[in-house]
Amino acid sequence: MRFTSGQHLDGVLEREFTLDGVPGILWTAGSASAPAPLILLGHPGGLRRMYPRLAARARHSVTEGFAAATIELPWAGDRPRSGAAEEARAALHNALRAGEPVTGEIVDRLVLPLLDQAVPEWQSALDALLSLPGITGPAGYSGGVISIGVRLAAADPRIAAALLFAGSYVPRAVFEEARQVTIPLLVLLQWDDEGNDRQMALDLFGALGSTEKTLHANLGGHTGVPQFEADDATRFFARHLK
Amino acid sequence: MRFTSGQHLDGVLEREFTLDGVPGILWTAGSASAPAPLILLGHPGGLRRMYPRLAARARHSVTEGFAAATIELPWAGDRPRSGAAEEARAALHNALRAGEPVTGEIVDRLVLPLLDQAVPEWQSALDALLSLPGITGPAGYSGGVISIGVRLAAADPRIAAALLFAGSYVPRAVFEEARQVTIPLLVLLQWDDEGNDRQMALDLFGALGSTEKTLHANLGGHTGVPQFEADDATRFFARHLK
Repeated sequence: MRFTSGQHLDGVLEREFTLDGVPGILWTAGSASAPAPLILLGHPGGLRRMYPRLAARARHSVTEGFAAATIELPWAGDRPRSGAAEEARAALHNALRAGEPVTGEIVDRLVLPLLDQAVPEWQSALDALLSLPGITGPAGYSGGVISIGVRLAAADPRIAAALLFAGSYVPRAVFEEARQVTIPLLVLLQWDDEGNDRQMALDLFGALGSTEKTLHANLGGHTGVPQFEADDATRFFARHLK
Repeated sequence: MRFTSGQHLDGVLEREFTLDGVPGILWTAGSASAPAPLILLGHPGGLRRMYPRLAARARHSVTEGFAAATIELPWAGDRPRSGAAEEARAALHNALRAGEPVTGEIVDRLVLPLLDQAVPEWQSALDALLSLPGITGPAGYSGGVISIGVRLAAADPRIAAALLFAGSYVPRAVFEEARQVTIPLLVLLQWDDEGNDRQMALDLFGALGSTEKTLHANLGGHTGVPQFEADDATRFFARHLK
């Protein structure tokens, strides 16, 4: 892990890094403080495009006593493209534009290769981040891609709680992994998410194996998550990571 | 409105009252303080049986700067019985016990007469409570019976926010009233509620006309609402009543 830049903003230290060619950003308290539990910030890919929202979520987390970090997704942002991934994304957009059903085959082509590539990268990031001074486990995962969050939560015992944003299609195979998840969960659903299937999200919530799981559904589209959910998220992680 | 008893407990003044023959309980701050917004506490009927949980909810509300009050439901607790209501309840229990579907006809017989009797009583209670010193509008409704909350929220402009507990069957006619509701809502659903229909609750959430509405679904049965939802409820009412 190599830090490539750093800046202080309103008491928060923001550092860009690369790890085996994967760019990422780490946010920590700007001044010396007790070791902070880590929250991994999930997103749909494209760190530059997502930066304003990610930085806002990260600063909120740091203010509440956490460290926050994220990495770029495979084939997104400045990382090398994948022809197969772009074809799968085009197939999804074509189906949505034509008002046709999003088939399981499209979802599998879109998400399964992403999972196989991304989840080990998030785990490598966890290795590196948790070895830094000032950052401590357990860690949380917060955001989308929900399938990444599910697989991480099922596979990596360092993830002790997860906020899963139900804003993307989920392969059937991931429903099986969902049954293996046992950590406390907060699932966020936008009721009128234009890039999601509400019933599928409700079914996934039902399938998750955790005995402590809460669904927060709010009216509105994909990007319309109300501001008060940020406070709820902080309290959720405070209950389980501190 | 006539107060029949009063006691101070941990800084909370609890007073029983009767209003036109309807028993009720009012909880306010034990010492002089600024006028407090009122939260009406809904429940399934049977004040004595429900008292421990109602009193806990009320004390939490008073501690957070609200007044709280509740009244007995028609044909429940110490109030005169209704043969028709008992027959309808028996029909519901028989259907559930036999694993048969709960028909709309059973739900209508059970809930519609209750609504017609109860909602004007809650409105009379609002008249009396809001005229007391130390209590101010706007008011909130918090709890079940969800159909009572929906009709009150649709019909009475003094109700400015409502937490609706989706823990009972809802007549189809109430879905129409739900579309008229425009105030901010927090809907609580227990995912495995044994006395409820999950899909009906989700449909009702969808039907509610409010542009600010949030669903909190938690794993577990009817009485298993997690403790942290009490804090969420307080923050919800603080956002909208203060």
